Amino acid sequence: DEALTLIAGPCQLESRDHALMIATRVQEICARTGAQFIFKGSFDKANRTSLSGKRGVGIDEGLRIMEAVKAELGCPVLTDIHTEEQCATVADTIDVLQIPAFLCRQTDLLVAAAKTGAAINVKKGQFLAPWDMPNVIDKITGSGNDRILLTERGTSFGYNTLVADMRSLPQMAASGFPVVMDATHSVQQPGGQGGSSGGQREFAPVMARAAVSLGIASVFIETHEDPDNAPSDGPNMIPLDRMDALVGSLMQFDTLAKADPLRL
Amino acid sequence: DEALTLIAGPCQLESRDHALMIATRVQEICARTGAQFIFKGSFDKANRTSLSGKRGVGIDEGLRIMEAVKAELGCPVLTDIHTEEQCATVADTIDVLQIPAFLCRQTDLLVAAAKTGAAINVKKGQFLAPWDMPNVIDKITGSGNDRILLTERGTSFGYNTLVADMRSLPQMAASGFPVVMDATHSVQQPGGQGGSSGGQREFAPVMARAAVSLGIASVFIETHEDPDNAPSDGPNMIPLDRMDALVGSLMQFDTLAKADPLRL
Amino acid sequence: DEALTLIAGPCQLESRDHALMIATRVQEICARTGAQFIFKGSFDKANRTSLSGKRGVGIDEGLRIMEAVKAELGCPVLTDIHTEEQCATVADTIDVLQIPAFLCRQTDLLVAAAKTGAAINVKKGQFLAPWDMPNVIDKITGSGNDRILLTERGTSFGYNTLVADMRSLPQMAASGFPVVMDATHSVQQPGGQGGSSGGQREFAPVMARAAVSLGIASVFIETHEDPDNAPSDGPNMIPLDRMDALVGSLMQFDTLAKADPLRL
Amino acid sequence: DEALTLIAGPCQLESRDHALMIATRVQEICARTGAQFIFKGSFDKANRTSLSGKRGVGIDEGLRIMEAVKAELGCPVLTDIHTEEQCATVADTIDVLQIPAFLCRQTDLLVAAAKTGAAINVKKGQFLAPWDMPNVIDKITGSGNDRILLTERGTSFGYNTLVADMRSLPQMAASGFPVVMDATHSVQQPGGQGGSSGGQREFAPVMARAAVSLGIASVFIETHEDPDNAPSDGPNMIPLDRMDALVGSLMQFDTLAKADPLRL
Repeated sequence: DEALTLIAGPCQLESRDHALMIATRVQEICARTGAQFIFKGSFDKANRTSLSGKRGVGIDEGLRIMEAVKAELGCPVLTDIHTEEQCATVADTIDVLQIPAFLCRQTDLLVAAAKTGAAINVKKGQFLAPWDMPNVIDKITGSGNDRILLTERGTSFGYNTLVADMRSLPQMAASGFPVVMDATHSVQQPGGQGGSSGGQREFAPVMARAAVSLGIASVFIETHEDPDNAPSDGPNMIPLDRMDALVGSLMQFDTLAKADPLRL
Repeated sequence: DEALTLIAGPCQLESRDHALMIATRVQEICARTGAQFIFKGSFDKANRTSLSGKRGVGIDEGLRIMEAVKAELGCPVLTDIHTEEQCATVADTIDVLQIPAFLCRQTDLLVAAAKTGAAINVKKGQFLAPWDMPNVIDKITGSGNDRILLTERGTSFGYNTLVADMRSLPQMAASGFPVVMDATHSVQQPGGQGGSSGGQREFAPVMARAAVSLGIASVFIETHEDPDNAPSDGPNMIPLDRMDALVGSLMQFDTLAKADPLRL
Repeated sequence: DEALTLIAGPCQLESRDHALMIATRVQEICARTGAQFIFKGSFDKANRTSLSGKRGVGIDEGLRIMEAVKAELGCPVLTDIHTEEQCATVADTIDVLQIPAFLCRQTDLLVAAAKTGAAINVKKGQFLAPWDMPNVIDKITGSGNDRILLTERGTSFGYNTLVADMRSLPQMAASGFPVVMDATHSVQQPGGQGGSSGGQREFAPVMARAAVSLGIASVFIETHEDPDNAPSDGPNMIPLDRMDALVGSLMQFDTLAKADPLRL
Repeated sequence: DEALTLIAGPCQLESRDHALMIATRVQEICARTGAQFIFKGSFDKANRTSLSGKRGVGIDEGLRIMEAVKAELGCPVLTDIHTEEQCATVADTIDVLQIPAFLCRQTDLLVAAAKTGAAINVKKGQFLAPWDMPNVIDKITGSGNDRILLTERGTSFGYNTLVADMRSLPQMAASGFPVVMDATHSVQQPGGQGGSSGGQREFAPVMARAAVSLGIASVFIETHEDPDNAPSDGPNMIPLDRMDALVGSLMQFDTLAKADPLRL
């Protein structure tokens, strides 16, 4: 099996310079540790908890930033989309289109994304079982695209809490598609701060390590040089200066896990 | 307090004649029992479990059918919308725009729906706590619309199961907006039949009666003359020929509940 | 169907005079409203959240208090038991032996309680589905006792929260045994105050009314003249001076529900 | 940190020869792989799903078998207790007294177990949050015993399902006491087969590996030479002939985890 792919970046794209600063730093870490790298950034946060939450730089500026990252660093880039209309435009620049968890059953969005031919990363909805994902997969493959990634980002567990069920990783992997652990959002506390979501940043490395030890293809981690002042998801982002140690550690578990695959 | 409003109809609009048949029958029942009536029907099922699930008659035909129901019966009509683009068009005909539960945090959809000036029925997401709804409400009122209904349709409870927490009804009612109990979808078993969702039709009257006894404004019930052969949601729809007894019973509890309001 | 039975009393037995004061007051309310009455009190709280929580008056004093209540008021009495050894002794005085929810699968306790011949009220564990209860019932009937009551007291729902699933009431009633709604403990927040359990007293009447409207046999409500200073379960007990209005209201819903039984 | 401790054995003690056969085999595996070993066996299954489930060899025979295992193999032994009366007797032979999850809040049992001076392994109830465990710990330390182990065995997640929240492992470890992952029972499906509990044996290694990678002290695994014909817990026990590969693999993750402790 191939080495772990790190999908990482800030939650929101903030500016060209900011994106390049983070992407450069994470790319160096990946090069040093042997991880593969996909840069992640959002141009629009379409489902903020409250109307006053910052939405992002918008699609035009977002795509310009992503172009710059690709041109300067040569790494693939991932962003999330929210409407059918965005799909074709975004796919001109973006290598991996991400389907947000709340939207993972919206047939038209899945079909439009699939038809671009880009790779599709579908986040499993907080309301879905791992064994429900084949229905989601079929909407994409049935539209002629089999470049699919499946992401675990936690399941509703009472109110304002998610739980990440480790069984879902091998269960989704049984589909044959690469599985991603979203270590950032699986420790989110949705709505837990009233007007915004809370999070438990300290547990993101717990989720990442447990999942990587199971031999998954990829881990998704949002990072920021100053999470507490980031425009969104601050409570669960990893500080940029801790990424080096974290990724280095994860790669050791990845090497061991890939050499010793789980047999169910 | 006013008498209970029954929001009822088939899951999918099938044809003009079918819609009129059901609406006429339910309107008669409401007239006899003293309930208020809003006719419900969907022109598109945008998040079917699988790609092969029937999607519906489409927006143009759907709106024509709804026009006919309004013209013939004079009752208000409700339908669900899925994209910003649909909002203005649909609002020309439809009295109540319904926001699907999975989409209840999509800011642009909420704002576009709000701006039509139509009444907005927001279904609480399966992943939300009742006390998270003020954030959703604010997106609508912040867009200049305070004609809002809030619907309980169940909360994720483990895999493939929902639970309806009765506390959520008075909790949401504390917002001052009318609260609707969706007796049909709160007994859904999402994904419970592999390629489609299961349901427990026999418990829909349980949910309806418990909720109505708490003095809510409205109950939402999907009905069909032949649920087992309906194009969607068959497992949890109430047979049309049982609606008379059910609504009659609910109105007795409604009368008692409205005369004896709960004080928390 | 018979009129609703109110199982009520303080959480802990405190003294003879205190028990008689509460029992007398609730008996008057039941007489006025037409409810049947069983007096409830605990002699030992065997699973307090913390070691320093008050345990109660003990078995000897507790049984003396219960004797006095029976002698003075002539009503049946209920208490909870925690070990096999207690069963025979307690059953000399007590009409209904209650099996705590955490202990509802302890075979020896169920068998010993059953063999006393007393009526047995089993609380469904927070970790059980309603359809798991036939296994519990069989342990009692298999020991020669078919005087059984089944109590819903909420199910684990994430951390520190319970949810009462209204479907469980008709599901358990399908066994043929009377079903009790524990309106007090189903709104408990286990461990929610660190060293003790929290609660949402304001929702106990919500649970009681919703359940009674479904036609159940009995409702269980703990009450105290000064809940905030009660030795246990204060956060979810109903103040004694609100019981009159509450029971009067519940009896109206009970009358209606018994005249109009739910058909599943 | 010390090497991983494997707590392993059959679910029920069956006979002296059977216990010795399994203990010998697992001890050899531990010696080869560098794991520490505690032999586990139950003399009584006090909370079987149904009355007809096999209960076990009883306390006298069970303790004789455990004596033989200690005498022949020199390893510490663990068994679960269910009443205060059993504690002192059992502690004469047994090194680690285990408190079953359903009983983890029964104060008298915790105190009686604590007072024996034996080590106490408390299983976190399926209805408890990890941050509720300090209250349980205090009942034991407050009785003069600080030789405590804390076990994660899954949390209620809807009906008939458990989920193991990986965050609970570092959360409980923050108490300073060693943490055990029960890989066998966290994949149990309580009541999932009607008259007995189901299980997902194939996921026990998933739970074990994810937890060991987080640097926990111990993993608990039930094993049997013929799980499908074992008297209890067959659906989630690991076949004895797969233990060698499993433990060898876990020790590699343990070595890596102990060299690279998680910092929260």
